[in-house]
Amino acid sequence: MSAATLETASLTHEQKLDRLAEVAIQVGLGLKRGQELVMTATLDTLPLVRRITEHAYRNGATLVTTLLTDEESTLLRYQYGDNESFDYAAAWLYNGMAAAYKSGAARLAIAGGNPGLLSQQAPEKVGRANSAVSKAYRPALELITRHDINWTIVAAATPAWAATVFPNLPADQALAKLWDAIFAASRCDLADPVKAWREHDAGLHRRADLMNQKRYSALHFQAVGTDLRVGLADDHLWLGGGMHAQNGQYCIPNMPTEEVFTTPHKERTEGHVTSTKPLSYQGTMIEGIRVRFEGGRVVEAKATNGEEVLNRMISTDDGARKLGEVALVPHSSPIASSGLLFNNTLFDENAASHIALGQAYSSCLKNGDKLTPEQLAKLGANDSLIHVDWMIGSGQMNVDGITAEGKIDPLMRQGEWV
Amino acid sequence: MSAATLETASLTHEQKLDRLAEVAIQVGLGLKRGQELVMTATLDTLPLVRRITEHAYRNGATLVTTLLTDEESTLLRYQYGDNESFDYAAAWLYNGMAAAYKSGAARLAIAGGNPGLLSQQAPEKVGRANSAVSKAYRPALELITRHDINWTIVAAATPAWAATVFPNLPADQALAKLWDAIFAASRCDLADPVKAWREHDAGLHRRADLMNQKRYSALHFQAVGTDLRVGLADDHLWLGGGMHAQNGQYCIPNMPTEEVFTTPHKERTEGHVTSTKPLSYQGTMIEGIRVRFEGGRVVEAKATNGEEVLNRMISTDDGARKLGEVALVPHSSPIASSGLLFNNTLFDENAASHIALGQAYSSCLKNGDKLTPEQLAKLGANDSLIHVDWMIGSGQMNVDGITAEGKIDPLMRQGEWV
Repeated sequence: MSAATLETASLTHEQKLDRLAEVAIQVGLGLKRGQELVMTATLDTLPLVRRITEHAYRNGATLVTTLLTDEESTLLRYQYGDNESFDYAAAWLYNGMAAAYKSGAARLAIAGGNPGLLSQQAPEKVGRANSAVSKAYRPALELITRHDINWTIVAAATPAWAATVFPNLPADQALAKLWDAIFAASRCDLADPVKAWREHDAGLHRRADLMNQKRYSALHFQAVGTDLRVGLADDHLWLGGGMHAQNGQYCIPNMPTEEVFTTPHKERTEGHVTSTKPLSYQGTMIEGIRVRFEGGRVVEAKATNGEEVLNRMISTDDGARKLGEVALVPHSSPIASSGLLFNNTLFDENAASHIALGQAYSSCLKNGDKLTPEQLAKLGANDSLIHVDWMIGSGQMNVDGITAEGKIDPLMRQGEWV
Repeated sequence: MSAATLETASLTHEQKLDRLAEVAIQVGLGLKRGQELVMTATLDTLPLVRRITEHAYRNGATLVTTLLTDEESTLLRYQYGDNESFDYAAAWLYNGMAAAYKSGAARLAIAGGNPGLLSQQAPEKVGRANSAVSKAYRPALELITRHDINWTIVAAATPAWAATVFPNLPADQALAKLWDAIFAASRCDLADPVKAWREHDAGLHRRADLMNQKRYSALHFQAVGTDLRVGLADDHLWLGGGMHAQNGQYCIPNMPTEEVFTTPHKERTEGHVTSTKPLSYQGTMIEGIRVRFEGGRVVEAKATNGEEVLNRMISTDDGARKLGEVALVPHSSPIASSGLLFNNTLFDENAASHIALGQAYSSCLKNGDKLTPEQLAKLGANDSLIHVDWMIGSGQMNVDGITAEGKIDPLMRQGEWV
């Protein structure tokens, strides 16, 4: 047993929660003294909301405003709301959030809640409600995807989520085990979580730098059920770990994060790919996804579970059928090592290589944040109301890098970096 | 025991809560099918939030968005926030609410929470924070005070509030007794609460009509500690009960409501007045207020408790020292009959005649909603960032109406209508 483990083994749950809040504010968000904070969370994450609020004020926040979602109230709409109401979203609130970001606020989202909240509701209503939110949220989301502001996402264990990860355990044990897994993946069980995060972040930057030196024009993914060639955008940039937002603050947008990622070319993906983990999409679990691409577009989408929601998702707009992100994660990442299926993208995407349908990150292109939408499109960056990651990596996955001259480099074998 | 009482005596707490939500949406708010609803509430009122959300959707709401306040998070700012931060408010959120109202949303506020939440915090910080919120909230508040939209306030019992009303009872009994008092004052213990509200509303309208026929130019309040002459605004209108908002919906803005009220002339109040109930002002209890007016302005303000907060409140702006409302409530009102001091303006103002410092309601002037700010000011309507009611009525209060010709009519004797 190492000194670090000895030291942290005696930490109480409250102390670990406090450490998670500390790294979220200091390392994940990189809150600036005198900066406002807008937080979103479901009610069942309230203990973490309060610890993060405390650390935000300790680090000089002018004001922390938390938009708390009551999931029971969300369900009441499906139970009693008029059918016509589902095309409606609170544009005033999303526009307000965009105004907050424009006036200097940082953004922190707590992932938690019930991943299957809407699984019993009519997929048609869920799809319309999500589509209305996507449209209303777009102005605010653009400020985030363009990294105009510092932002981060952290996770809190919730009873409903824990039950999906540990279906055979009693509720209290499942919740405790999910918290342990979150604390471990978020490096809060180490002697100095802030220092551990700084070192991990430097490692991800080294990997991204290496990929940027190679300048591959495409990646080739091969595994059982997958034979996919993903063309990369012209002038693509690999990113990993933290980054300087346009407002000058250094943030690590996801906690945990294990990925290096870039922007595919929206017209240059060919072949088929099979998901290796379920996707929780706004309340529905989509499993066994199998998708075929032609000229960058999804031309066929099947799923063993949630196929209707999947097809609604990719019908949101034209860009919803094209890739906006490709990411590489070794199968030996700490989250993959836990052996757990988290049923949560923030974790599962950091346990496996993945792709995302929808909006591309302009920050994954050279000088991307200074380019016009037309210039971005010309380089191959995709445009959509959605951005949905799903996992394709596994211990069987081989990945090759292909240069413009046709040279093939093995990048990953059996899920590990070569 | 009447049939009505027999019928309702067997109602469970959940059933009474459901009735409160029903009258709040159908009678108080007058929600229109296809209308959005913006609700504000503290976390400890969540059970009522959910029942109101259900009734809103049953009555055709497109979307219910509840802005939930966690009072523990509010306190963390006072505990850990930088001193400079207290001049900051979430303008983006209040502007967002104003945008919601402009796009057709209705507004429901649930009063509850802890009336003494900020009583241990530095009055200077509380004052600055409140002042910042008042300024940021102004655009949204104007849409409410002008009755552009249908809105209402209802109350939910909370443990902290119940403890101030029943300080000698165990927590669970105090909470149950406060709920009983709220259900009674909100007519939810009657056989048909919706019908009872319609009848009560008609009675308030008859009283206001009578006052409007008299066209008094001033009221004279006399009691121990009070000798106050309140000049009424030119073209003032007495209102009571419900009204048609500019958007066409009929709403009763306060539940309960027992008052008839109008707009004083901002330069024509003379004399001194003593409060008869404590005022809970944004977290601080102000007690034993004694104020002297000259030419409509408060020139001296004392309080036995919370004097510093009182003086900060009236220093918000120039209009904060002048009257924006005067209201008459008989001492025999159901709320006064309960004999309880609610420590909550929504209830206590409907148990006693009262005055408000700050912003006048333009709806209490003939065609007031069509007048410019200059025209309103010329008639004597006050303008301020605040609108704070406090109680001056009692079983000892005499009130006279004085006509322009100097004729004096006795209106109230020993707190009752003559």
